[in-house]
Amino acid sequence: MDEFDIDRLADPDLDDPVLIEGLPGVGHVGKLAAEHVLEEFDTELVRRIHSEHFPPQVTVEEGRTQLASAEVYAVRDAECDLLVLTGDHQAGDGPGHYRLTETILDVAASFDVDRLYALGGIPTGELVDEPDVVGAATTDGLIESLEATGVEFRENEPAGGIVGVSGLLLGLGQRRGFEAACLMGETSGYLVDPKSARVVLETLETVVPFEIEYGSLSERAEEMEDVVKRIRQMEQGTTPSEEDLRYIG
Amino acid sequence: MDEFDIDRLADPDLDDPVLIEGLPGVGHVGKLAAEHVLEEFDTELVRRIHSEHFPPQVTVEEGRTQLASAEVYAVRDAECDLLVLTGDHQAGDGPGHYRLTETILDVAASFDVDRLYALGGIPTGELVDEPDVVGAATTDGLIESLEATGVEFRENEPAGGIVGVSGLLLGLGQRRGFEAACLMGETSGYLVDPKSARVVLETLETVVPFEIEYGSLSERAEEMEDVVKRIRQMEQGTTPSEEDLRYIG
Amino acid sequence: MDEFDIDRLADPDLDDPVLIEGLPGVGHVGKLAAEHVLEEFDTELVRRIHSEHFPPQVTVEEGRTQLASAEVYAVRDAECDLLVLTGDHQAGDGPGHYRLTETILDVAASFDVDRLYALGGIPTGELVDEPDVVGAATTDGLIESLEATGVEFRENEPAGGIVGVSGLLLGLGQRRGFEAACLMGETSGYLVDPKSARVVLETLETVVPFEIEYGSLSERAEEMEDVVKRIRQMEQGTTPSEEDLRYIG
Amino acid sequence: MDEFDIDRLADPDLDDPVLIEGLPGVGHVGKLAAEHVLEEFDTELVRRIHSEHFPPQVTVEEGRTQLASAEVYAVRDAECDLLVLTGDHQAGDGPGHYRLTETILDVAASFDVDRLYALGGIPTGELVDEPDVVGAATTDGLIESLEATGVEFRENEPAGGIVGVSGLLLGLGQRRGFEAACLMGETSGYLVDPKSARVVLETLETVVPFEIEYGSLSERAEEMEDVVKRIRQMEQGTTPSEEDLRYIG
Repeated sequence: MDEFDIDRLADPDLDDPVLIEGLPGVGHVGKLAAEHVLEEFDTELVRRIHSEHFPPQVTVEEGRTQLASAEVYAVRDAECDLLVLTGDHQAGDGPGHYRLTETILDVAASFDVDRLYALGGIPTGELVDEPDVVGAATTDGLIESLEATGVEFRENEPAGGIVGVSGLLLGLGQRRGFEAACLMGETSGYLVDPKSARVVLETLETVVPFEIEYGSLSERAEEMEDVVKRIRQMEQGTTPSEEDLRYIG
Repeated sequence: MDEFDIDRLADPDLDDPVLIEGLPGVGHVGKLAAEHVLEEFDTELVRRIHSEHFPPQVTVEEGRTQLASAEVYAVRDAECDLLVLTGDHQAGDGPGHYRLTETILDVAASFDVDRLYALGGIPTGELVDEPDVVGAATTDGLIESLEATGVEFRENEPAGGIVGVSGLLLGLGQRRGFEAACLMGETSGYLVDPKSARVVLETLETVVPFEIEYGSLSERAEEMEDVVKRIRQMEQGTTPSEEDLRYIG
Repeated sequence: MDEFDIDRLADPDLDDPVLIEGLPGVGHVGKLAAEHVLEEFDTELVRRIHSEHFPPQVTVEEGRTQLASAEVYAVRDAECDLLVLTGDHQAGDGPGHYRLTETILDVAASFDVDRLYALGGIPTGELVDEPDVVGAATTDGLIESLEATGVEFRENEPAGGIVGVSGLLLGLGQRRGFEAACLMGETSGYLVDPKSARVVLETLETVVPFEIEYGSLSERAEEMEDVVKRIRQMEQGTTPSEEDLRYIG
Repeated sequence: MDEFDIDRLADPDLDDPVLIEGLPGVGHVGKLAAEHVLEEFDTELVRRIHSEHFPPQVTVEEGRTQLASAEVYAVRDAECDLLVLTGDHQAGDGPGHYRLTETILDVAASFDVDRLYALGGIPTGELVDEPDVVGAATTDGLIESLEATGVEFRENEPAGGIVGVSGLLLGLGQRRGFEAACLMGETSGYLVDPKSARVVLETLETVVPFEIEYGSLSERAEEMEDVVKRIRQMEQGTTPSEEDLRYIG
């Protein structure tokens, strides 16, 4: 295997596709969001990216093994053609992050992508009832149009910058002429957060644009809400009566 | 020395050999199993693989030093010709794991290997009285034939995938046209586990096939059983009388 | 992106420029000092150095992203032309430090730099009221001229040597014929230390030479003094009355 | 700078020189021993090896900086010509250890070295009054001649093998046709141990052969003995009277 090994599984004709990235990260917000988009549309797996910069492992699903990879899917039945990148891993080393991101940009370029959105979470350190979406972008024009949809651009946030593939898609993407934005849903940082993924997607729907349902994501969000409630009750040292739960839930 | 340096010590004519891999890992199940196969047959050391991806060290046996390596042995007096890979080390870095595995597959290809079995343990977190064998494989055909021998293929197990050379032998092996399976004996994950190695070998015997005795491995298993018994008694805060030990042991 | 990717933003004609380096390190002394020089003069950004050896991240300022980089600024309105190197990151791996430093020296050579000063802190482990400046240099001549301005050259200090880009600018710089010195302000090692940055700059002013004001740096130093005072009072278990604070502050 | 950068400072004509290596390690036994040899003879610095695999730092001595390096000295006034390798650093990464050792072997080969001795300590975990010397070697002949001088070759010792440059000088050296041995003085592993360095050197004197005095090393050993005594007294909760100390010391 070379440093990167790309399986070209399909080459559909896409019309000005927008790239959406959601890899594992804070609250798994980006990955949840990207996977929900894939659930809501018909998809075609177009590229599978393998790399020695991924962890040395295979995943196992019902006995069949799959070498560590990131996958790029094409979506053609949305209002706008999409390429969705997701997977189970970030790179395992610093230079690997740079090279993986360049490889993803190569794929994007081969499909004539102009604009890309990196999705993720921004940690707040505490449970968030109504998460905002915080943005970062490579151009003032993109910042303006995102601000118009309610995305917040805050001085010095995220404080530590944006780390990993999401950050580099903007940093390296800009150098190669892509217009790129990162949409980060507020999230505690302690729990998988489908509610945060939903607010990120609601913003994305407006700007790309496309339209999706949130049934399955809402169910997962409600399950997590329940987990959160129990945690809060444990913190307060009280166990709610069944009555209370019915009222709150 | 190059990145990989292979000593070609012998090139016997093997008839459709099956590659068996057992390197250090969970419960040392894979390594114990591979070493037991080597004890039970006449073997010929055919390759010694050195690499700067192995730890920078030599082992010492009765004063003589041996540079870190993995070894490939040929077995020709079994029902089916075998190549057995074992050694004291996994690679020390992520890309090293990928490249070491490709190097092993090169050796396998040079002996016209078609099928390979990676042996290892799957951690359960608690002591296991009658370990099952959990499997993973690269083809549905292989899964079916292994299921017929009692190997379990479970949804989402192992949960974290298969890490290291064992996992990559399947992941990279499949890309190069090998048929490959991983046989994992259940084991606590806390102790060296010859009993788990035995159940893995009993499965392997059926599918390769070959036949071996388990005398020496059983002895080691009984020694470990004794260790386990003492641990359990310590946990319960009781010390058995000598009488009891005689009866149980 | 290549291993290093340098944006050539301007190529002003500089007259025997002196390179001043201040990257993050002990007490952020070097970075504070370099940034203060940039505040005090008109500056022109001449090079931006990107590298896969920097952390895989972008910084975000008011929504706009900037790929991890080190920057080189030209200063032409000082008594002597200056090149000032600063940034938010050291390299993320050992060989990366060597190669980043060589890249910086390449830039220095392209502007015909002969002499360079690396700025930093030297940790004392305790709060320092009147920090000294400790030096290290590549030539006896430079040591003598620095000693004449009050810089201390101590046997075996800093005990662990000088680590990172500052150290390698001397070590690798000397091999390429640069004359180089490191000026290290004493600092506790626990706090960002503008006072230490000031004493380092006061020395640098004399030897380069140039002249600057310290207004803004003094303000930051006073803020830190206040922090230090509070820490000391907490350590002594006393909380000062408002009166006391007015008197001391 | 390249991956390795060697300053060729002198090329004296040496007669079948023996290479002696003593880099930092357990109890600093090897480094103390190599440095003592250098103190006892007239020496000529013949090679200084720089590498990006060394830590990114300079050492400072009385203000002058020295880029991280390993040094090779020639000794021509001993009974047998010697090359002595010492320095302040091991490599910072696994492949770096392999490549540094190959570079050292290149230097050895350029001086027609046939035999080399790696010096070090073997940790016992407790204070040792009369340390033995444990050996490891690449040939049975060398083992026999070392056993005749009292060196111990023990089954499975050192248990974890020999790590770092010392180990690889044997492992890689053997592959290139050098005859090599490692002499390891027993040492607690907790303290710098000049006494252990002395017993290693006494063995080395016999086998190389050469003759040296131990005045300065004995002084350092006595200083450490004193430290050890105090530690033991602290452990026993007693403080010796001055009288006692005079008697014991």
